[in-house]
Amino acid sequence: MKKETDILVIGAGPVGLFTVFEAGLLGLKCTLIDNLDKVGGQCSELYPEKPIYDIPGVPNQTAQEHVDALMEQIKPFDFDLHLSQRVELIEVHSIEDGITTWLVKTNEGIECITKNIFIAAGAGSFEPRRPPNIEDPDKFLGNGVSYAVKSKDLYKDKNLFIFGGGDSALDWTVELAKIAKSVNLIHRRDQFRGAQHTEAQMRELVQSGEVNLMTPFQIDEIIGEDKVTGVALRNFDTKECITHDADELLFLFGLNKKLGPILEWELDLVSKKISVNTENFQTNRDGIFAVGDINDYPGKLDLILCGFHETTLAVQKAYQRNFPGERVPFGYTTSNTKLQRKLGVAE
Amino acid sequence: MKKETDILVIGAGPVGLFTVFEAGLLGLKCTLIDNLDKVGGQCSELYPEKPIYDIPGVPNQTAQEHVDALMEQIKPFDFDLHLSQRVELIEVHSIEDGITTWLVKTNEGIECITKNIFIAAGAGSFEPRRPPNIEDPDKFLGNGVSYAVKSKDLYKDKNLFIFGGGDSALDWTVELAKIAKSVNLIHRRDQFRGAQHTEAQMRELVQSGEVNLMTPFQIDEIIGEDKVTGVALRNFDTKECITHDADELLFLFGLNKKLGPILEWELDLVSKKISVNTENFQTNRDGIFAVGDINDYPGKLDLILCGFHETTLAVQKAYQRNFPGERVPFGYTTSNTKLQRKLGVAE
Repeated sequence: MKKETDILVIGAGPVGLFTVFEAGLLGLKCTLIDNLDKVGGQCSELYPEKPIYDIPGVPNQTAQEHVDALMEQIKPFDFDLHLSQRVELIEVHSIEDGITTWLVKTNEGIECITKNIFIAAGAGSFEPRRPPNIEDPDKFLGNGVSYAVKSKDLYKDKNLFIFGGGDSALDWTVELAKIAKSVNLIHRRDQFRGAQHTEAQMRELVQSGEVNLMTPFQIDEIIGEDKVTGVALRNFDTKECITHDADELLFLFGLNKKLGPILEWELDLVSKKISVNTENFQTNRDGIFAVGDINDYPGKLDLILCGFHETTLAVQKAYQRNFPGERVPFGYTTSNTKLQRKLGVAE
Repeated sequence: MKKETDILVIGAGPVGLFTVFEAGLLGLKCTLIDNLDKVGGQCSELYPEKPIYDIPGVPNQTAQEHVDALMEQIKPFDFDLHLSQRVELIEVHSIEDGITTWLVKTNEGIECITKNIFIAAGAGSFEPRRPPNIEDPDKFLGNGVSYAVKSKDLYKDKNLFIFGGGDSALDWTVELAKIAKSVNLIHRRDQFRGAQHTEAQMRELVQSGEVNLMTPFQIDEIIGEDKVTGVALRNFDTKECITHDADELLFLFGLNKKLGPILEWELDLVSKKISVNTENFQTNRDGIFAVGDINDYPGKLDLILCGFHETTLAVQKAYQRNFPGERVPFGYTTSNTKLQRKLGVAE
């Protein structure tokens, strides 16, 4: 089923989230798509605990606190949020009176019809890193290979091999040991980059025999036809290779940044960023805007505060595209009772 | 004595204050001039108690809280602040290698030499309203006429007449009754627009004979040669006129917005706003920038968040003008230890 939305926002980082606020003030509804499994973009995924000092009027706040504050700020407004998927395809749905309407499809089957696409994808989408020495591990995707935990149930009563040495690998080893038939943690050395506390928990589970820790090992081969049935692991020191029965392989090697399908949308690019005008941050394509770190224009700085400005101006243009000829109902939140009613703070 | 400064900022509202932060990150020092007697511009002067909802990442904050947060944010940086005066004159001091240096003078005698003038004057300067029926009351300025309390000592043991019906008139009536020889409060009707609590305090002082309240009265004439010696007051109802000995007349009729001397600086204007480019928000004059509500460009919105963006980009250009040919040391506050050291949060 195709849904209609006023603004389809690609990316649920700070700038994508604030778009919901500015659009909401004008009565426009947003649909957000992000390929991470949570909102906040880089702030939540890469440095949630780090303080940010240059959000104007916020002397000191961690990145995650900033995202939480934005979520609180957009609470008064209705919006749709689709996580863990990415926009794969956009195509012209129709053109009426010179205004293009777009059809947008995600890799999870969501289809949206919209007059406005806001690309707020930061440095691009984050792609999980694949095991470097395995040819086309994705052919087992959904059949024994995964790069993120979408549902814990998948691993229930399974022989699970987790690969990685960071927080994700440690967290999921501890968590999934509760439900999997067996959990094997494989890492190329016996040192971990994750939180000490979680590493200690993992090592306790190794002591009690609930987790099997294999270091220094790396994957050598995925065994199976259509489905994973086993895995070959090679000892980093001895070069010896051993084979195990396996149901699920979970690779947690972190994320790579990629522009991904955006490259195929015939947008003017300047050094891997999308060119926009500074009046409304529209790209060369009618109704497609780029806001935040992913865009480029003379003077551009990759700062969150600049993205806030950009999307605020872009939303004005989106309104005009939705309601051609109408005046944009601009108002100050301090003095406009109608706005305050929307925000739920005035009668 | 002429002082040198990296950026001379006209206006100490939110955008002027945040300029100190962004300049500070680059090692530039600001000098701020504002003709109000406190920082915060309109936020502090016109609606300190009103909540603002559209500061990104700050769901709900009063205007004054926002200003306080900005003051906290710029605390790590050295800056000069000159209040209760306005920039009267700017002129070219020198031009070297195509870069203009400016001489800036205020009406209180401050003189600054700077390569960068940032006009962050909001809707313009706020001018005190004069008594409408007195010709040139300013000729007694500093000699018995004032429009704001700069120092309470001026009124000590004086026969003081306060004119006005708002918060300022009430506040200063209550306050100065403690030190003046006599305090007379003159208003054109017996109703006041100020806080009920303060009005009650004032009326108690009238009861106890410490304040003389005269309504419905207005000023008819200022008496004196070089200095105020008396005042003629006319009863609004009876039209009768009476004369009193007077030392000090304090007119508290509120503020008018005016562009003031800015109009004389040969800047390109569009409907009372200063035209700028969107790359660095420079005006038509070399080294003069306009940021925040006072500027205009295609797409412009009068929002604080837009001013933050504008001044951040303008500061980059200011750096290049101060250090021609050098790369601007751009960095993220989350990850740059050098910046964090400046902010006083890292070793």
